[in-house]
Amino acid sequence: MPQPVDPPDVLPEAPPQAPPEPAPQAPFGEPREFRLDPDALEQFTADVCRALGTPDDIAADVATVLVAADRRGIASHGTARLPSYVALVDAGVVDVAARPVIDAGRGAFVRFDAGNGWGHHAGRVAIDWAIESARTTGIALASARNANHYGIAGWYALRAAEAGMIGISMTNTTGSVAPTRSRQGLIGTNPIAIAAPAGHRPAFSLDMATSTVPRGKLEVAERRGKPIPLGWAIDRDGVPTTDATAALDGALLPLGGLEETAGYKGYGLALAVDVLTGVLAGATFGKRISGLFDTAAPSDLGQLFLAIDAGAIGDAEAFGERLGDYLDGLTEAPTAPDAPGRVLVPGEPEVAAEALSGVEGVAADARHVADLRALAARFEIAPPPFAGKAGA
Amino acid sequence: MPQPVDPPDVLPEAPPQAPPEPAPQAPFGEPREFRLDPDALEQFTADVCRALGTPDDIAADVATVLVAADRRGIASHGTARLPSYVALVDAGVVDVAARPVIDAGRGAFVRFDAGNGWGHHAGRVAIDWAIESARTTGIALASARNANHYGIAGWYALRAAEAGMIGISMTNTTGSVAPTRSRQGLIGTNPIAIAAPAGHRPAFSLDMATSTVPRGKLEVAERRGKPIPLGWAIDRDGVPTTDATAALDGALLPLGGLEETAGYKGYGLALAVDVLTGVLAGATFGKRISGLFDTAAPSDLGQLFLAIDAGAIGDAEAFGERLGDYLDGLTEAPTAPDAPGRVLVPGEPEVAAEALSGVEGVAADARHVADLRALAARFEIAPPPFAGKAGA
Repeated sequence: MPQPVDPPDVLPEAPPQAPPEPAPQAPFGEPREFRLDPDALEQFTADVCRALGTPDDIAADVATVLVAADRRGIASHGTARLPSYVALVDAGVVDVAARPVIDAGRGAFVRFDAGNGWGHHAGRVAIDWAIESARTTGIALASARNANHYGIAGWYALRAAEAGMIGISMTNTTGSVAPTRSRQGLIGTNPIAIAAPAGHRPAFSLDMATSTVPRGKLEVAERRGKPIPLGWAIDRDGVPTTDATAALDGALLPLGGLEETAGYKGYGLALAVDVLTGVLAGATFGKRISGLFDTAAPSDLGQLFLAIDAGAIGDAEAFGERLGDYLDGLTEAPTAPDAPGRVLVPGEPEVAAEALSGVEGVAADARHVADLRALAARFEIAPPPFAGKAGA
Repeated sequence: MPQPVDPPDVLPEAPPQAPPEPAPQAPFGEPREFRLDPDALEQFTADVCRALGTPDDIAADVATVLVAADRRGIASHGTARLPSYVALVDAGVVDVAARPVIDAGRGAFVRFDAGNGWGHHAGRVAIDWAIESARTTGIALASARNANHYGIAGWYALRAAEAGMIGISMTNTTGSVAPTRSRQGLIGTNPIAIAAPAGHRPAFSLDMATSTVPRGKLEVAERRGKPIPLGWAIDRDGVPTTDATAALDGALLPLGGLEETAGYKGYGLALAVDVLTGVLAGATFGKRISGLFDTAAPSDLGQLFLAIDAGAIGDAEAFGERLGDYLDGLTEAPTAPDAPGRVLVPGEPEVAAEALSGVEGVAADARHVADLRALAARFEIAPPPFAGKAGA
């Protein structure tokens, strides 16, 4: 999606000597004043996973996927979540050594039992199965049950695109979105990710929640004391609201917003994702899904991993070139008078953030840095350099 | 989708003796005062196709799919379009006898060359191939190029659901939707249809354009002199508008509407559909697609037909029961104060319309009836009874 991302802040001239104490429960969207070296962050993340008893290869997958989110500017799905994952392991809710196994299937369609292990590892194994299988069968689908939070859905779709294929991934999530006409959040923000190689351009990469916005945007608006657009959320009584505080006490609205602006389509998409993940895999679905970082019980999420080889029906490179040309044309289209910039194509902001992260480091807020240092202290491992390449 | 459909009008007590002359270029959404017997309408539609030189079996497919739209209350995609299809044949732009052939493929993924024939027939053949293949391979994908307008995307997805499978269909369409930040309509309303069997309930059936609304809704608002919600459309200068006339001169907005309400997600979805149809199949895509009923040249649309057999990874009936229970729960959810009714699930309004059509006949406006009578006169075939089962 051409979703705006917060531009990484400028690297401070003189890195602070120590991160300040985080505010209690500081939400995502705080000023991200710090910089983390992404490679060191990935190493650190793997170290933490290993310290929890995770085998090396599984730890590497977790670190790769989490830091990919940080690199791509999607802080809400990156290493800022590491303390929440650690809490799940501490509570005995996630099995750090579990390996996904195929427990059913026929032809080009199998189901993995993810064994309640790290979602990032099970997801990597599942999409790799789909990619390898599609080389023979043209298309291949892996469904997963007993799965856990797997980070950004887009990573798995991009994995296929990097292998020259179209990739699709979806997961169900905790109910926080109100179906059209409902007064409660009964369905997840259930993301859809689709990626495809685009020849001379970076891959096409759509990675979108099926809600209008994530909950984090309500938190940012509340902190800034700003109203939210109508169509983002309803209050606790089910009434559409422009008040961020009331919205946080209510539920998100599906893509499209209110019924008059076709919110029922976003609701339908969110539901379709649940059908193709939880219901299909025989995992949990709908309002029965517990909070993703709820330490009371395993999540038993359902996920989908699909690979399509354009080479099965033609020249895969020609497919990529067609797509690249198409995207070029869109970026050159005449813009509307109120447009804040040129037309973007799905994945562009994330590619830009990734490039910037490689130069300036990953942007992080004070709480994120403090959390990582606390984990470093607990596991007696070196924290990642926290003030950009110049720091530490 | 739980998309509101116009409720069929009450059957008039005394059927009129002859339909009034239609207004010039009467848009869809006129009062639908007439009733057509759906079985007779299907027979008539097949008769028209045969009179154009269409082989019997192909004519039957066209009639089935077009009248399915009428039965399901989607008049914009039904037999009201018959004159437009006939004009394409008259212009030599559609090959009425063409049969789709598989021209490439590997394993569970093939491409059909639809040969510029009737889209409804090629689509039926393609989804049937996917359904039959998925019985062996678990999942199967048919891509189509050189295709024409195929009516409601939902019909092909439902065809798979009726065979006990999950069905997905998509098609690209003429550019009428403005990508986020663009001042012009550069991308189609590119629909996504997903259907699945739902045990004791009618099938789950999401069939949605990726624009906020279809153009027809702008026409209805203009005729009624009513403003349109912000987020439906932009004017010819690319400025968001609430004026229906200005909107008709501009472009539709993607699902989500403006950028602040995440219209870039709907834009991303519309683009993803084009990637999975036109770009993948090697057909036309984006703004190069001519008007669907443009008689200047063949459409060369790209389409996708996917079938997934839940039985490949478990008990297909248990899948349906899980989904049925899930949908039951949604329909029983507490409603918001402003809700015009209970929570709906995708496909419900269409199933209700279909049931009513079986009893009261298909609702039609004056122009629709006059057009059918004109075709009847031209081809010297009996027109369908036009005033409901009591009429004619």
